[in-house]
Amino acid sequence: MLYEKKRPKPPEEYYRVPVDVLKEYTIEFFKAFGVCDRDAEIAADVIITADLFGIESHGVQRLRRYYYTPLAKGVIKPHGNISIVKEGPTYAVVDGNNGIGLIIGVKAMRIAIKKAKKSGVGFVLVRNSSHYGIAGYHAKVASDNGLIGISMTNSQPLVAYTNTIGRNIGTNPIAVAIPTKNPPPILIDMATSIVPMGKIEVALRLKKEIPLGWGMNERGELTKNPKDILHGGALLPLGGLGETLGGHKGSCLAILVDILSGVLSKSGWGANVYSPSSGRSPKVGHFFMAIDIEKVMPIEEFYSLIEAYKKYIKGLKKHPNADRIWIPGEKSWRTMTTRMKLGIPIHISVMKELEEISRELGIKEYYEKIKRNAKRLFS
Amino acid sequence: MLYEKKRPKPPEEYYRVPVDVLKEYTIEFFKAFGVCDRDAEIAADVIITADLFGIESHGVQRLRRYYYTPLAKGVIKPHGNISIVKEGPTYAVVDGNNGIGLIIGVKAMRIAIKKAKKSGVGFVLVRNSSHYGIAGYHAKVASDNGLIGISMTNSQPLVAYTNTIGRNIGTNPIAVAIPTKNPPPILIDMATSIVPMGKIEVALRLKKEIPLGWGMNERGELTKNPKDILHGGALLPLGGLGETLGGHKGSCLAILVDILSGVLSKSGWGANVYSPSSGRSPKVGHFFMAIDIEKVMPIEEFYSLIEAYKKYIKGLKKHPNADRIWIPGEKSWRTMTTRMKLGIPIHISVMKELEEISRELGIKEYYEKIKRNAKRLFS
Repeated sequence: MLYEKKRPKPPEEYYRVPVDVLKEYTIEFFKAFGVCDRDAEIAADVIITADLFGIESHGVQRLRRYYYTPLAKGVIKPHGNISIVKEGPTYAVVDGNNGIGLIIGVKAMRIAIKKAKKSGVGFVLVRNSSHYGIAGYHAKVASDNGLIGISMTNSQPLVAYTNTIGRNIGTNPIAVAIPTKNPPPILIDMATSIVPMGKIEVALRLKKEIPLGWGMNERGELTKNPKDILHGGALLPLGGLGETLGGHKGSCLAILVDILSGVLSKSGWGANVYSPSSGRSPKVGHFFMAIDIEKVMPIEEFYSLIEAYKKYIKGLKKHPNADRIWIPGEKSWRTMTTRMKLGIPIHISVMKELEEISRELGIKEYYEKIKRNAKRLFS
Repeated sequence: MLYEKKRPKPPEEYYRVPVDVLKEYTIEFFKAFGVCDRDAEIAADVIITADLFGIESHGVQRLRRYYYTPLAKGVIKPHGNISIVKEGPTYAVVDGNNGIGLIIGVKAMRIAIKKAKKSGVGFVLVRNSSHYGIAGYHAKVASDNGLIGISMTNSQPLVAYTNTIGRNIGTNPIAVAIPTKNPPPILIDMATSIVPMGKIEVALRLKKEIPLGWGMNERGELTKNPKDILHGGALLPLGGLGETLGGHKGSCLAILVDILSGVLSKSGWGANVYSPSSGRSPKVGHFFMAIDIEKVMPIEEFYSLIEAYKKYIKGLKKHPNADRIWIPGEKSWRTMTTRMKLGIPIHISVMKELEEISRELGIKEYYEKIKRNAKRLFS
């Protein structure tokens, strides 16, 4: 059954672009900045997976803001060269040398996997990195190899810590991937704020109100107006404003991610992590961990247990107001399946941006290929 | 400054009991069931720490329901003997043999610490355990040794997974302890539901309404009546009902804890974890992890970074409606400091229960000692 987390609406403003040509464009985008073939392939895969999963806020529409601008300014470097600062049988401290987080993240997780396969568990602390795309991609690198993967990153401050006002802590996502034999996979990928900033920007573009509770204005009051949050306001931690509904728990999770990713790696943390468009080295820190299930039980046995677990969740009594019961990651997986078949929906404004970028970078032929293969949804 | 998370209210219904005599009573309580001296000391320390932290729902008022009843019925055994089922340099799978979770948890965390000190990180999976008290105690065992400690446990189902009704997943807490040189420590200890069931029971006892959002009635509707939740209803995951304010994220965290604690250890999970008063083996599973900071940086350097982190949080701009900005664990730590000095507030009904228990178990002299040393708050 075809399903998409966010259906392209209104359809007349969208093209469907086949996955392979969009990926080819993205590879050329990174190569145009001097990224080597192998690393460009990694970076593009992270970006395109976000679009496949229906997390457009981390897909090609972010190429300009998250990568073009800081690469052009030289605040992030076109390499994926990491240095291992410190290393032991189960751990490594890695310096990203201000390279591209997308690539650094994958390489760091591969180190964690290698260590876990030998020792049972491995963790890697990364300093001086930058935006690494969707947290879940990196966790999935481990689960694709039959291991449990944990991926965390801090971000520039966008959230108001409990009992404060203003932006002072990141949206600091946590992702955990559990390997499964059959789809859907179990992939948890969550900002520790109620929503990421991308949702506020979408609401503004669509001139819609946001649900009360997502964010505060500059005076610390709840607001339905996305503008209030974008201009002087802040997002709220999972659990919301104050402690009544557990806002302090969301704040706890944000601190946890900041300490594991930023403090333990000696990278930036709190207000010392910078946005990709700030003109400063982002100083983003990451935390990766892989756990080798085979050390504690045969993987086939684990797969059976996890299928039983999924069946248990799916068999629960549905809430009368709900459409269906979802396994974590199932929506993204089904969206991916649909988009592999139909192509990735790209808004006309994003198409225009991809065209501009292709002219500026001299990769116009790859944009032309997108254009040739794109289908208008309604024309 | 004297501070208590929950001040004894109304004070005329409370006694203050010195910590040492309450602990002595609790040690004798466990010894009366045949628990050996050393293990009884561990179990009592976990219970009394809950009372010191202001988490009464896991303190002496639970001795009857969580320990007396299942010990008397023989569904949990008076030993803390764990068997190591599988072991490697960084991990162990432990069988709790239906013993007392309080003791099993501490012993399992000690194994994780030993492994972390050698290898950098260690994790221990525990099956066939029972209620292990406050999750934070076990995490703190690691931070008291200068390591980062992570402690998780599943519990009998009390929460409605997103888009379902009824109780089908545990309150599955996550605790993380970060070692610090100076107080307050950083101790995160949170149920992955908005509140634990204890808060609903307190509201019922005080004949108070609960905030809308904490739980649902048997038809899946939000309710302010604690009775609705206790009779056929369920608690809600952090983030609340549905997905608007991130309820699916709380559900993700609950699943994560259930998989790491229950599935990976091959213990109970989902509806196959039983309450201490159910008359069945609880089949509770735990997950413990310790990370040795010294492997990645000198501990003194980490302590300085963490003090800077705490200072950063404390220095944020306070929300106009908030009393103050709190570090995770700070409230518990300040409550402990106060109660070490003044004693632990015990409600007259709990005093009565402690007296009854002491008669039934033949440890009346230890109750008499409590009584002799207790001070009425107002009389």
